Amino acid sequence: MRNFSEDHSDLALNTATLGHLMEGCGAGWSPERIIDACAERGFGAIAWWRREIGKRGFEIGERTRSAGLEVSGLCRAPFLVGPLTPGGRQEVIDDFKLAIEIASDLGARCLTVCAGGVIEGSHSITESLKEVASIVADMAQYAESSGVRLAVEPLHPVYGASRSCLVTVRDAVNMCEDIAHPFVTIAVDVYHVWWDISLASELKRAGADRIAGYHLCDWLADTNDVLLDRGMMGDGVADLKAIRQAVENAGYSGYCEVEVFSVNNWWKRDPSEVLDVCVERFRTVC
Amino acid sequence: MRNFSEDHSDLALNTATLGHLMEGCGAGWSPERIIDACAERGFGAIAWWRREIGKRGFEIGERTRSAGLEVSGLCRAPFLVGPLTPGGRQEVIDDFKLAIEIASDLGARCLTVCAGGVIEGSHSITESLKEVASIVADMAQYAESSGVRLAVEPLHPVYGASRSCLVTVRDAVNMCEDIAHPFVTIAVDVYHVWWDISLASELKRAGADRIAGYHLCDWLADTNDVLLDRGMMGDGVADLKAIRQAVENAGYSGYCEVEVFSVNNWWKRDPSEVLDVCVERFRTVC
Repeated sequence: MRNFSEDHSDLALNTATLGHLMEGCGAGWSPERIIDACAERGFGAIAWWRREIGKRGFEIGERTRSAGLEVSGLCRAPFLVGPLTPGGRQEVIDDFKLAIEIASDLGARCLTVCAGGVIEGSHSITESLKEVASIVADMAQYAESSGVRLAVEPLHPVYGASRSCLVTVRDAVNMCEDIAHPFVTIAVDVYHVWWDISLASELKRAGADRIAGYHLCDWLADTNDVLLDRGMMGDGVADLKAIRQAVENAGYSGYCEVEVFSVNNWWKRDPSEVLDVCVERFRTVC
Repeated sequence: MRNFSEDHSDLALNTATLGHLMEGCGAGWSPERIIDACAERGFGAIAWWRREIGKRGFEIGERTRSAGLEVSGLCRAPFLVGPLTPGGRQEVIDDFKLAIEIASDLGARCLTVCAGGVIEGSHSITESLKEVASIVADMAQYAESSGVRLAVEPLHPVYGASRSCLVTVRDAVNMCEDIAHPFVTIAVDVYHVWWDISLASELKRAGADRIAGYHLCDWLADTNDVLLDRGMMGDGVADLKAIRQAVENAGYSGYCEVEVFSVNNWWKRDPSEVLDVCVERFRTVC
């Protein structure tokens, strides 16, 4: 297991942690200012969201690298099925392709893919998962030719209906095995998997080549919102060392990306403070 | 699979569905009025909550039976570990014994047991589960001598931190197997398990003798509160027929108990209407 206590070069910032540059969040910082602040603090990489970079993918990718950082990922492809999809299958695929192109422009290591919820009227997780697998399989070749790995992220079962019929690492690994394409991999996020005591064995089954990302945050015992009240590492109940041990025992040696959605706490703070806390917590509790 | 379309004698009411007799909920109905209303409509059983019956366990049990109904269960033992326990281990055991005694007075078929959340400061689901298993094992003999089966209920992973470190049927079945006592069984609740595509195989592993209850409701796609915004059967995304099929394929042939926590919808309605809807939905969509 890597020792981060005196070296945080494997720490990445997911820009959601600074409030997505939204009005009233993150003190109005620009992408450039985020890049410089991360570089100053010795972060190794940044993961961007589409909403933040618009059509500036190539430029922001270059800017990130020229500051000595990598682009660890892009969030994200559209929801593939369920109530929050942008339209029918063709609209989903068109937007999925666009997301791959932006990730490619950015030089991102991977594109996060969230399944989307249960298909309306189907009442079936299983049928919904089949459609998700079908779309991901269809996009695998396009992803490979663009040089972008797809990181399919199982979300917490609380999102099963609306955002992700894919709710366990087990089901995500099964999907990867069925599709069997080297550019179809998974992302592991503490928030979504902390409760799962089969995590270590499932990740081992996945293997290093099928894990494209590891996301850090914490689950607050008294959380008041399962979307926008994530905790900073150390403030919640997740067994962060054990989870990272499981990820690394499976062979993962990539970035650890802090992704804290926290509309009423961390998003309201000075981004400089937030970044400092990320570094300190990463070195001490992750 | 049982056919309920013209026979709802296997339908039970969990009184939580009428708002726990709380101020402003359930139109102030008394236990007696609930019993009569269920009897009139041909329900087969009622499951009570401790808060509703106080020290009237024996009396309400007799009253339920004299109306031609059984007492399908009592909710519930105290949280065994985690932030919501009533105190240290001894307080938990004392209250657990009291709950068994009330269930025995009532003549309830089983007592629902919720594990409680992750032990504060432990950051460990696994350690918390061990303590839960230890307490349940300690209480098994007392339960048997009181004639009350313990129905350990895995809750949805969204409650992992606060209310239940036991979040999957798999882990509940493993706990039963480890304790290996005929009075230690599980309860299966649609709200908590609907997302789990391994449900059928895990229930088969449990077997009929280890399933003491089956609870009905639905998971609303646009739920606004994961504690008090449950849906009535048919209004959500759960595959109710498939879940019941899984429960019955495992050998379960007991009551199907409607348990809808819904502070802003069903709890505000006339209990007569709520009971009528329960019957209608049970016959058509469950």
